[in-house]
Amino acid sequence: MSDFEQRLSDNAAAVNDVLDDLLGIAEGPEKVLGEAMRYSSLGGGKRVRPFLVTASSALFNVAERAALRVAAAVEMVHCYSLIHDDLPAMDDDDLRRGRPTCHVEYDEATAILAGDALLTKAFEVLAEDDTHQDAKVRAELCLALAKAAGDHGMVGGQMLDLVAEDHELGVAEITRLQRMKTGELIAISCEAGGILGKASEHARNTLHAYAHDIGLAFQIADDLLDVEGDADEVGKKTGKDAESGKATFVSLLGVEGAREQAKMLSEQAASHLEVFGDDAEPLRQMAHFIVHRSS
Amino acid sequence: MSDFEQRLSDNAAAVNDVLDDLLGIAEGPEKVLGEAMRYSSLGGGKRVRPFLVTASSALFNVAERAALRVAAAVEMVHCYSLIHDDLPAMDDDDLRRGRPTCHVEYDEATAILAGDALLTKAFEVLAEDDTHQDAKVRAELCLALAKAAGDHGMVGGQMLDLVAEDHELGVAEITRLQRMKTGELIAISCEAGGILGKASEHARNTLHAYAHDIGLAFQIADDLLDVEGDADEVGKKTGKDAESGKATFVSLLGVEGAREQAKMLSEQAASHLEVFGDDAEPLRQMAHFIVHRSS
Repeated sequence: MSDFEQRLSDNAAAVNDVLDDLLGIAEGPEKVLGEAMRYSSLGGGKRVRPFLVTASSALFNVAERAALRVAAAVEMVHCYSLIHDDLPAMDDDDLRRGRPTCHVEYDEATAILAGDALLTKAFEVLAEDDTHQDAKVRAELCLALAKAAGDHGMVGGQMLDLVAEDHELGVAEITRLQRMKTGELIAISCEAGGILGKASEHARNTLHAYAHDIGLAFQIADDLLDVEGDADEVGKKTGKDAESGKATFVSLLGVEGAREQAKMLSEQAASHLEVFGDDAEPLRQMAHFIVHRSS
Repeated sequence: MSDFEQRLSDNAAAVNDVLDDLLGIAEGPEKVLGEAMRYSSLGGGKRVRPFLVTASSALFNVAERAALRVAAAVEMVHCYSLIHDDLPAMDDDDLRRGRPTCHVEYDEATAILAGDALLTKAFEVLAEDDTHQDAKVRAELCLALAKAAGDHGMVGGQMLDLVAEDHELGVAEITRLQRMKTGELIAISCEAGGILGKASEHARNTLHAYAHDIGLAFQIADDLLDVEGDADEVGKKTGKDAESGKATFVSLLGVEGAREQAKMLSEQAASHLEVFGDDAEPLRQMAHFIVHRSS
């Protein structure tokens, strides 16, 4: 394991502790809801988005506890989106992070509600005093997350993905789709540090530019993994895009072209960070990791 | 139409205008998402919760625009919950407010996403500067709504309702179920005025007590409508509870007992409001309306 992978793993463990604490132990006849929320939130994952939250927060000396709470909130939104995307009416996936998806482990109704509850909980966490003493920061976090996750962000991207099955998309349209579906949540993960640390407009724009590039690089790497990855290692079914005839960066640019594009975006992302000096090393390493991961 | 019904109808029209404005016109290949959000939010309804927001806000001289935005946000959450509750995996309902439910009019995937997007949008609206100049108020609104709508509130209540099908519930358990499933959102609707108007602790507690009573009265009236109402007038299928053998206030207390209980709660709710004098007349009328409505 490289130093970076160790760092990523340590951060994932810290975020898991906070998630564990925030989600609490479910009680009452309805406790299956809380169990499903925990099942889908605490079941592994690299915790890329939480890492981006804590690494961007470290640039502005944000208290670790605050950063980890926001990291947990963003991860709750990510996990809710996976639960709903995996539903039979959506992508109909049985395997996620190497385990049965939520609706397979429980049932569809429980999965829908667990997703709803995780999304709602994310806003509860952000709005609580514990996240930041300044209410302006808390309200800004809620606003930024809602915009990133809503109909003009992640949910809109998922809708676009569903209707795209009947359309021939070009590179510009796939780029827009992925920016909405995965890019916006990655962007708020990077910008969260700037919000928590009340960073300058310039610093925030820099983080936004970095996030934009790694978001796209991340998605291209995902498309490559779907073609070249091993299901056991990736933890979910592969070869799905080709099977469904869906346009992806790989189908449009070819394997080599896609790999080159991802590498270029990763380098471009890192180059934005010069202004932060050595403090931004973890974010640079993440830009590299995103396109070189095997799962 | 009584004066009160006219007032309720005028308020509904004002809330619809704000919802119409906040939801905007959908564009892009994914516009079916925005259309489904509008379909399920702008398709009628008495707008009981929005009325409670504006009537409680009026007690503290809150600007009408702020109250209507919060009213719209609460209604978005209510509408999202109806979309998801109506899904085949949940209550499997085809009719809502006299029209096909969202997943019948569109499809299941679109309905799931439209619900997700409406929930997310509610927090966006609350967190925006336009809702209140004081960020503390905005963050408090987000927090209160998240608590009311989440796993310890509305979503938890829906889960409890689903698992209740396999349990024999008594009055105490049904009361808890309904307090979570419908009561908490009614409570935040009443308390929103106190939050927006920075009301005293005492005033907020008074609103909470009122909300608690009307919430329960509302649900008992709903159970009575399911037994005695006409599907055309109620706008959704009736007789469902008896058909499914589900325990309700009516099955536990009998029609007469339930009617008495609802009336008692309605009067008790109104009695809490004395401290507010004549200003609380709309809230008193609402307590009366809730148990005497025919739809």
